[in-house]
Amino acid sequence: MDTRDRLIESTRELLWERGYVGTSPKAIQQHAGAGQGSMYHHFAGKPELALAAVERTAEALRTQADAELSGPGKASERIAAYLHREREILRGCQIGRLTQDPEVMGSPELRRPVEETFDWLRNRLAEVITEGQADGEFTGLDPAATAATVVATLQGGYVLARASGASEGFERAVEGVLNLLVRRP
Amino acid sequence: MDTRDRLIESTRELLWERGYVGTSPKAIQQHAGAGQGSMYHHFAGKPELALAAVERTAEALRTQADAELSGPGKASERIAAYLHREREILRGCQIGRLTQDPEVMGSPELRRPVEETFDWLRNRLAEVITEGQADGEFTGLDPAATAATVVATLQGGYVLARASGASEGFERAVEGVLNLLVRRP
Repeated sequence: MDTRDRLIESTRELLWERGYVGTSPKAIQQHAGAGQGSMYHHFAGKPELALAAVERTAEALRTQADAELSGPGKASERIAAYLHREREILRGCQIGRLTQDPEVMGSPELRRPVEETFDWLRNRLAEVITEGQADGEFTGLDPAATAATVVATLQGGYVLARASGASEGFERAVEGVLNLLVRRP
Repeated sequence: MDTRDRLIESTRELLWERGYVGTSPKAIQQHAGAGQGSMYHHFAGKPELALAAVERTAEALRTQADAELSGPGKASERIAAYLHREREILRGCQIGRLTQDPEVMGSPELRRPVEETFDWLRNRLAEVITEGQADGEFTGLDPAATAATVVATLQGGYVLARASGASEGFERAVEGVLNLLVRRP
Protein backbone atom coordinates (compact mmCIF):
# COMPACT_ATOMS: atom_id res chain seq x y z
CA MET A 1 0.00 0.00 0.00
CA ASP A 2 1.21 3.51 -0.73
CA THR A 3 0.89 6.30 1.81
CA ARG A 4 -2.42 7.58 0.43
CA ASP A 5 -3.92 4.10 0.73
CA ARG A 6 -2.54 3.62 4.23
CA LEU A 7 -4.11 6.93 5.28
CA ILE A 8 -7.49 5.87 3.90
CA GLU A 9 -7.34 2.39 5.47
CA SER A 10 -6.27 3.83 8.85
CA THR A 11 -9.14 6.30 8.72
CA ARG A 12 -11.60 3.48 7.95
CA GLU A 13 -10.38 1.57 11.04
CA LEU A 14 -10.46 4.58 13.33
CA LEU A 15 -13.90 5.74 12.15
CA TRP A 16 -15.25 2.25 12.85
CA GLU A 17 -13.65 2.13 16.29
CA ARG A 18 -14.00 5.69 17.54
CA GLY A 19 -16.31 7.58 15.17
CA TYR A 20 -15.58 10.85 13.40
CA VAL A 21 -15.48 13.12 16.45
CA GLY A 22 -13.17 10.69 18.26
CA THR A 23 -10.71 10.40 15.35
CA SER A 24 -8.03 13.08 15.31
CA PRO A 25 -5.68 13.84 12.37
CA LYS A 26 -2.81 12.96 14.70
CA ALA A 27 -4.29 9.52 15.46
CA ILE A 28 -4.72 8.87 11.72
CA GLN A 29 -1.10 9.85 11.04
CA GLN A 30 0.16 7.59 13.85
CA HIS A 31 -1.98 4.65 12.73
CA ALA A 32 -0.85 5.07 9.12
CA GLY A 33 2.79 5.73 10.00
CA ALA A 34 2.62 8.95 7.98
CA GLY A 35 3.75 12.46 8.84
CA GLN A 36 1.54 15.51 9.05
CA GLY A 37 3.04 16.94 5.86
CA SER A 38 2.37 13.71 4.00
CA MET A 39 -1.28 13.63 5.10
CA TYR A 40 -1.86 17.24 4.01
CA HIS A 41 -0.04 16.52 0.73
CA HIS A 42 -2.67 13.88 -0.12
CA PHE A 43 -5.77 15.36 1.52
CA ALA A 44 -6.94 18.90 2.26
CA GLY A 45 -7.92 17.83 5.77
CA LYS A 46 -9.79 15.35 7.93
CA PRO A 47 -13.17 15.86 6.16
CA GLU A 48 -11.73 15.02 2.72
CA LEU A 49 -9.86 12.00 4.07
CA ALA A 50 -12.93 10.81 5.98
CA LEU A 51 -15.02 11.12 2.81
CA ALA A 52 -12.55 8.93 0.89
CA ALA A 53 -12.63 6.38 3.74
CA VAL A 54 -16.45 6.32 3.99
CA GLU A 55 -16.83 5.99 0.21
CA ARG A 56 -14.45 3.04 0.14
CA THR A 57 -16.29 1.37 3.02
CA ALA A 58 -19.67 1.97 1.35
CA GLU A 59 -18.42 0.48 -1.93
CA ALA A 60 -17.12 -2.64 -0.16
CA LEU A 61 -20.40 -3.04 1.72
CA ARG A 62 -22.49 -2.80 -1.47
CA THR A 63 -20.28 -5.24 -3.36
CA GLN A 64 -20.52 -7.86 -0.63
CA ALA A 65 -24.28 -7.46 -0.07
CA ASP A 66 -24.95 -7.60 -3.81
CA ALA A 67 -22.98 -10.84 -4.15
CA GLU A 68 -25.11 -12.45 -1.42
CA LEU A 69 -28.42 -11.06 -2.63
CA SER A 70 -27.71 -11.95 -6.26
CA GLY A 71 -26.46 -15.46 -5.48
CA PRO A 72 -28.17 -18.77 -6.15
CA GLY A 73 -31.31 -19.98 -4.39
CA LYS A 74 -34.78 -18.72 -3.57
CA ALA A 75 -35.23 -15.10 -2.50
CA SER A 76 -35.67 -16.11 1.16
CA GLU A 77 -32.45 -18.16 0.99
CA ARG A 78 -30.54 -15.22 -0.45
CA ILE A 79 -31.84 -12.91 2.28
CA ALA A 80 -30.89 -15.54 4.86
CA ALA A 81 -27.38 -15.77 3.33
CA TYR A 82 -27.06 -11.99 3.58
CA LEU A 83 -28.28 -11.90 7.19
CA HIS A 84 -26.19 -14.89 8.29
CA ARG A 85 -22.92 -13.67 6.79
CA GLU A 86 -20.00 -13.73 9.24
CA ARG A 87 -19.78 -10.27 10.83
CA GLU A 88 -17.71 -8.53 13.51
CA ILE A 89 -20.95 -8.03 15.40
CA LEU A 90 -19.56 -6.31 18.49
CA ARG A 91 -17.78 -3.69 16.38
CA GLY A 92 -21.11 -2.66 14.87
CA CYS A 93 -21.80 -1.43 11.34
CA GLN A 94 -19.11 0.78 9.83
CA ILE A 95 -21.71 2.84 7.98
CA GLY A 96 -24.56 2.79 10.51
CA ARG A 97 -22.41 4.01 13.40
CA LEU A 98 -21.72 7.25 11.51
CA THR A 99 -25.37 8.25 11.93
CA GLN A 100 -24.63 8.83 15.64
CA ASP A 101 -21.89 11.30 14.81
CA PRO A 102 -23.29 14.87 14.89
CA GLU A 103 -20.42 16.18 12.73
CA VAL A 104 -21.02 13.56 10.04
CA MET A 105 -24.78 14.16 10.03
CA GLY A 106 -24.18 17.91 9.97
CA SER A 107 -22.04 17.66 6.83
CA PRO A 108 -24.02 17.07 3.60
CA GLU A 109 -20.86 15.72 1.89
CA LEU A 110 -20.14 13.14 4.61
CA ARG A 111 -23.78 12.14 5.10
CA ARG A 112 -24.36 11.53 1.37
CA PRO A 113 -22.52 8.15 1.08
CA VAL A 114 -24.23 6.99 4.31
CA GLU A 115 -27.67 7.84 2.94
CA GLU A 116 -26.89 6.37 -0.49
CA THR A 117 -25.71 3.09 1.03
CA PHE A 118 -28.93 2.58 2.96
CA ASP A 119 -31.05 3.65 -0.03
CA TRP A 120 -29.23 1.18 -2.26
CA LEU A 121 -29.58 -1.65 0.29
CA ARG A 122 -33.28 -1.04 0.85
CA ASN A 123 -33.96 -0.94 -2.91
CA ARG A 124 -31.94 -4.10 -3.56
CA LEU A 125 -33.74 -5.99 -0.77
CA ALA A 126 -37.12 -4.77 -2.04
CA GLU A 127 -36.22 -6.13 -5.50
CA VAL A 128 -35.32 -9.51 -4.01
CA ILE A 129 -38.58 -9.58 -2.02
CA THR A 130 -40.52 -8.76 -5.20
CA GLU A 131 -38.71 -11.62 -6.99
CA GLY A 132 -39.69 -13.91 -4.12
CA GLN A 133 -43.33 -12.84 -4.39
CA ALA A 134 -43.30 -13.88 -8.07
CA ASP A 135 -42.29 -17.34 -6.79
CA GLY A 136 -45.01 -17.43 -4.12
CA GLU A 137 -42.90 -16.23 -1.16
CA PHE A 138 -43.59 -13.26 1.18
CA THR A 139 -47.32 -13.26 0.49
CA GLY A 140 -49.17 -10.11 1.48
CA LEU A 141 -46.06 -8.10 2.38
CA ASP A 142 -45.13 -4.66 1.08
CA PRO A 143 -41.63 -5.02 -0.45
CA ALA A 144 -40.38 -1.52 0.49
CA ALA A 145 -41.62 -1.67 4.09
CA THR A 146 -40.34 -5.22 4.56
CA ALA A 147 -36.95 -4.26 3.13
CA ALA A 148 -36.73 -1.35 5.57
CA THR A 149 -37.53 -3.75 8.42
CA VAL A 150 -34.78 -6.16 7.37
CA VAL A 151 -32.17 -3.37 7.18
CA ALA A 152 -33.37 -1.91 10.49
CA THR A 153 -33.20 -5.33 12.17
CA LEU A 154 -29.53 -5.64 11.24
CA GLN A 155 -28.71 -2.12 12.41
CA GLY A 156 -30.68 -2.53 15.64
CA GLY A 157 -29.20 -5.98 16.14
CA TYR A 158 -25.78 -4.35 16.37
CA VAL A 159 -27.16 -1.97 19.01
CA LEU A 160 -28.50 -4.88 21.09
CA ALA A 161 -25.22 -6.76 20.81
CA ARG A 162 -23.10 -3.79 21.80
CA ALA A 163 -25.40 -2.97 24.73
CA SER A 164 -24.80 -6.41 26.22
CA GLY A 165 -21.25 -6.95 25.02
CA ALA A 166 -22.35 -10.23 23.39
CA SER A 167 -23.61 -11.22 19.96
CA GLU A 168 -26.75 -12.98 21.26
CA GLY A 169 -29.08 -9.98 20.76
CA PHE A 170 -28.01 -9.58 17.13
CA GLU A 171 -28.45 -13.29 16.43
CA ARG A 172 -31.86 -13.39 18.11
CA ALA A 173 -33.13 -10.38 16.16
CA VAL A 174 -31.96 -11.92 12.85
CA GLU A 175 -33.56 -15.27 13.75
CA GLY A 176 -36.79 -13.43 14.59
CA VAL A 177 -37.01 -11.49 11.32
CA LEU A 178 -36.24 -14.59 9.25
CA ASN A 179 -39.01 -16.50 11.05
CA LEU A 180 -41.40 -13.62 10.37
CA LEU A 181 -40.41 -13.57 6.69
CA VAL A 182 -40.82 -17.27 5.97
CA ARG A 183 -43.93 -18.21 7.93
CA ARG A 184 -46.73 -18.72 5.49
CA PRO A 185 -49.96 -16.73 5.76
CA MET B 1 -35.33 22.51 39.67
CA ASP B 2 -32.39 22.69 42.02
CA THR B 3 -28.82 22.79 40.73
CA ARG B 4 -28.31 19.02 41.03
CA ASP B 5 -31.43 18.41 38.94
CA ARG B 6 -30.42 20.98 36.35
CA LEU B 7 -27.01 19.32 36.02
CA ILE B 8 -28.65 15.92 35.46
CA GLU B 9 -31.19 17.27 32.95
CA SER B 10 -28.50 19.17 31.05
CA THR B 11 -26.36 16.05 30.89
CA ARG B 12 -29.33 14.05 29.55
CA GLU B 13 -29.82 16.60 26.75
CA LEU B 14 -26.14 16.78 25.84
CA LEU B 15 -25.66 13.00 25.88
CA TRP B 16 -28.62 12.68 23.52
CA GLU B 17 -27.28 15.36 21.19
CA ARG B 18 -23.54 14.80 21.27
CA GLY B 19 -22.84 11.51 23.03
CA TYR B 20 -20.53 10.94 25.98
CA VAL B 21 -17.22 11.69 24.25
CA GLY B 22 -18.65 14.90 22.78
CA THR B 23 -20.00 16.17 26.12
CA SER B 24 -17.48 18.13 28.17
CA PRO B 25 -17.90 19.07 31.85
CA LYS B 26 -17.69 22.72 30.73
CA ALA B 27 -20.58 22.26 28.26
CA ILE B 28 -22.68 20.67 31.01
CA GLN B 29 -21.95 23.57 33.38
CA GLN B 30 -22.83 26.14 30.72
CA HIS B 31 -26.05 24.34 29.75
CA ALA B 32 -27.08 24.02 33.41
CA GLY B 33 -25.99 27.52 34.36
CA ALA B 34 -23.88 26.05 37.14
CA GLY B 35 -20.28 26.73 38.10
CA GLN B 36 -17.48 24.19 38.14
CA GLY B 37 -17.40 24.18 41.94
CA SER B 38 -21.12 23.51 42.09
CA MET B 39 -20.85 20.57 39.69
CA TYR B 40 -18.02 18.98 41.67
CA HIS B 41 -19.92 19.61 44.90
CA HIS B 42 -22.76 17.40 43.65
CA PHE B 43 -20.85 14.88 41.53
CA ALA B 44 -17.34 13.40 41.71
CA GLY B 45 -16.97 13.97 37.96
CA LYS B 46 -18.43 13.46 34.50
CA PRO B 47 -18.77 9.65 34.83
CA GLU B 48 -20.86 9.91 38.02
CA LEU B 49 -23.04 12.67 36.54
CA ALA B 50 -23.47 10.75 33.29
CA LEU B 51 -24.52 7.66 35.25
CA ALA B 52 -27.21 9.65 37.09
CA ALA B 53 -28.41 11.05 33.73
CA VAL B 54 -28.47 7.66 31.98
CA GLU B 55 -30.29 6.04 34.91
CA ARG B 56 -32.96 8.75 34.85
CA THR B 57 -33.41 8.38 31.08
CA ALA B 58 -33.61 4.59 31.37
CA GLU B 59 -36.23 4.86 34.12
CA ALA B 60 -38.37 7.25 32.03
CA LEU B 61 -38.09 4.99 28.99
CA ARG B 62 -39.20 1.91 30.93
CA THR B 63 -42.12 3.72 32.56
CA GLN B 64 -43.46 4.94 29.22
CA ALA B 65 -42.98 1.63 27.39
CA ASP B 66 -44.61 -0.28 30.22
CA ALA B 67 -47.66 2.02 30.16
CA GLU B 68 -48.11 1.32 26.43
CA LEU B 69 -47.42 -2.40 26.62
CA SER B 70 -49.67 -2.87 29.67
CA GLY B 71 -52.53 -0.79 28.24
CA PRO B 72 -55.92 -1.97 26.96
CA GLY B 73 -56.39 -4.00 23.80
CA LYS B 74 -55.03 -7.11 22.16
CA ALA B 75 -51.32 -7.83 22.35
CA SER B 76 -50.79 -6.73 18.72
CA GLU B 77 -52.63 -3.46 19.43
CA ARG B 78 -50.45 -2.77 22.46
CA ILE B 79 -47.28 -3.43 20.45
CA ALA B 80 -48.62 -1.13 17.71
CA ALA B 81 -49.32 1.57 20.31
CA TYR B 82 -45.77 1.24 21.58
CA LEU B 83 -44.27 1.38 18.07
CA HIS B 84 -46.49 4.25 16.92
CA ARG B 85 -45.86 6.49 19.91
CA GLU B 86 -44.81 10.04 19.02
CA ARG B 87 -41.02 10.16 18.98
CA GLU B 88 -38.29 12.66 18.15
CA ILE B 89 -37.18 10.28 15.44
CA LEU B 90 -34.32 12.32 14.00
CA ARG B 91 -32.74 12.73 17.43
CA GLY B 92 -32.49 8.95 17.74
CA CYS B 93 -32.80 6.83 20.88
CA GLN B 94 -31.30 8.34 24.01
CA ILE B 95 -30.23 4.91 25.26
CA GLY B 96 -29.38 3.21 21.97
CA ARG B 97 -27.02 5.96 20.80
CA LEU B 98 -24.80 5.32 23.84
CA THR B 99 -23.82 1.93 22.39
CA GLN B 100 -21.77 3.80 19.74
CA ASP B 101 -19.77 5.56 22.43
CA PRO B 102 -16.52 3.65 23.07
CA GLU B 103 -16.07 5.27 26.50
CA VAL B 104 -19.59 4.25 27.61
CA MET B 105 -19.16 0.69 26.32
CA GLY B 106 -15.72 0.52 27.95
CA SER B 107 -17.14 1.41 31.38
CA PRO B 108 -19.04 -1.43 33.10
CA GLU B 109 -20.87 1.12 35.32
CA LEU B 110 -22.12 3.22 32.39
CA ARG B 111 -22.93 0.25 30.17
CA ARG B 112 -25.02 -1.48 32.89
CA PRO B 113 -28.17 0.72 32.64
CA VAL B 114 -27.99 0.52 28.82
CA GLU B 115 -27.86 -3.28 28.91
CA GLU B 116 -30.57 -3.50 31.59
CA THR B 117 -32.93 -1.26 29.62
CA PHE B 118 -32.73 -3.43 26.52
CA ASP B 119 -33.01 -6.64 28.56
CA TRP B 120 -36.10 -5.30 30.31
CA LEU B 121 -37.69 -4.19 27.02
CA ARG B 122 -37.03 -7.49 25.27
CA ASN B 123 -38.45 -9.45 28.22
CA ARG B 124 -41.55 -7.26 28.47
CA LEU B 125 -42.23 -7.55 24.71
CA ALA B 126 -41.73 -11.34 24.87
CA GLU B 127 -44.33 -11.48 27.67
CA VAL B 128 -46.81 -9.49 25.57
CA ILE B 129 -46.18 -11.75 22.56
CA THR B 130 -46.76 -14.80 24.75
CA GLU B 131 -50.03 -13.26 25.99
CA GLY B 132 -51.03 -12.72 22.35
CA GLN B 133 -50.27 -16.33 21.52
CA ALA B 134 -52.69 -17.42 24.26
CA ASP B 135 -55.32 -15.38 22.35
CA GLY B 136 -54.42 -16.91 18.97
CA GLU B 137 -52.06 -14.16 17.76
CA PHE B 138 -48.44 -14.52 16.56
CA THR B 139 -48.83 -18.19 15.65
CA GLY B 140 -45.60 -20.10 15.18
CA LEU B 141 -43.29 -17.32 16.38
CA ASP B 142 -40.64 -17.58 19.07
CA PRO B 143 -41.46 -14.84 21.63
CA ALA B 144 -37.85 -14.04 22.58
CA ALA B 145 -36.59 -13.86 18.98
CA THR B 146 -39.60 -11.86 17.84
CA ALA B 147 -39.19 -9.43 20.74
CA ALA B 148 -35.54 -8.92 19.81
CA THR B 149 -36.62 -8.18 16.22
CA VAL B 150 -39.16 -5.58 17.37
CA VAL B 151 -36.59 -3.78 19.55
CA ALA B 152 -33.97 -4.00 16.80
CA THR B 153 -36.42 -2.59 14.23
CA LEU B 154 -36.95 0.50 16.37
CA GLN B 155 -33.24 1.01 16.97
CA GLY B 156 -32.39 0.42 13.31
CA GLY B 157 -35.29 2.61 12.23
CA TYR B 158 -33.60 5.51 14.00
CA VAL B 159 -30.40 4.74 12.06
CA LEU B 160 -32.27 4.80 8.72
CA ALA B 161 -34.01 8.06 9.60
CA ARG B 162 -30.81 9.79 10.67
CA ALA B 163 -28.97 8.56 7.58
CA SER B 164 -31.50 10.29 5.32
CA GLY B 165 -32.36 13.22 7.58
CA ALA B 166 -36.04 12.25 7.34
CA SER B 167 -38.38 10.06 9.38
CA GLU B 168 -39.57 7.98 6.39
CA GLY B 169 -37.10 5.12 6.97
CA PHE B 170 -38.16 4.73 10.60
CA GLU B 171 -41.84 4.76 9.70
CA ARG B 172 -41.39 2.27 6.87
CA ALA B 173 -39.44 -0.16 9.10
CA VAL B 174 -42.14 0.03 11.82
CA GLU B 175 -44.90 -0.50 9.24
CA GLY B 176 -42.99 -3.50 7.89
CA VAL B 177 -42.53 -5.22 11.23
CA LEU B 178 -46.18 -4.67 12.20
CA ASN B 179 -47.31 -6.22 8.88
CA LEU B 180 -45.01 -9.17 9.53
CA LEU B 181 -46.40 -9.59 13.05
CA VAL B 182 -50.10 -9.53 12.20
CA ARG B 183 -50.26 -11.52 8.96
CA ARG B 184 -51.81 -14.88 9.75
CA PRO B 185 -49.99 -18.11 8.94
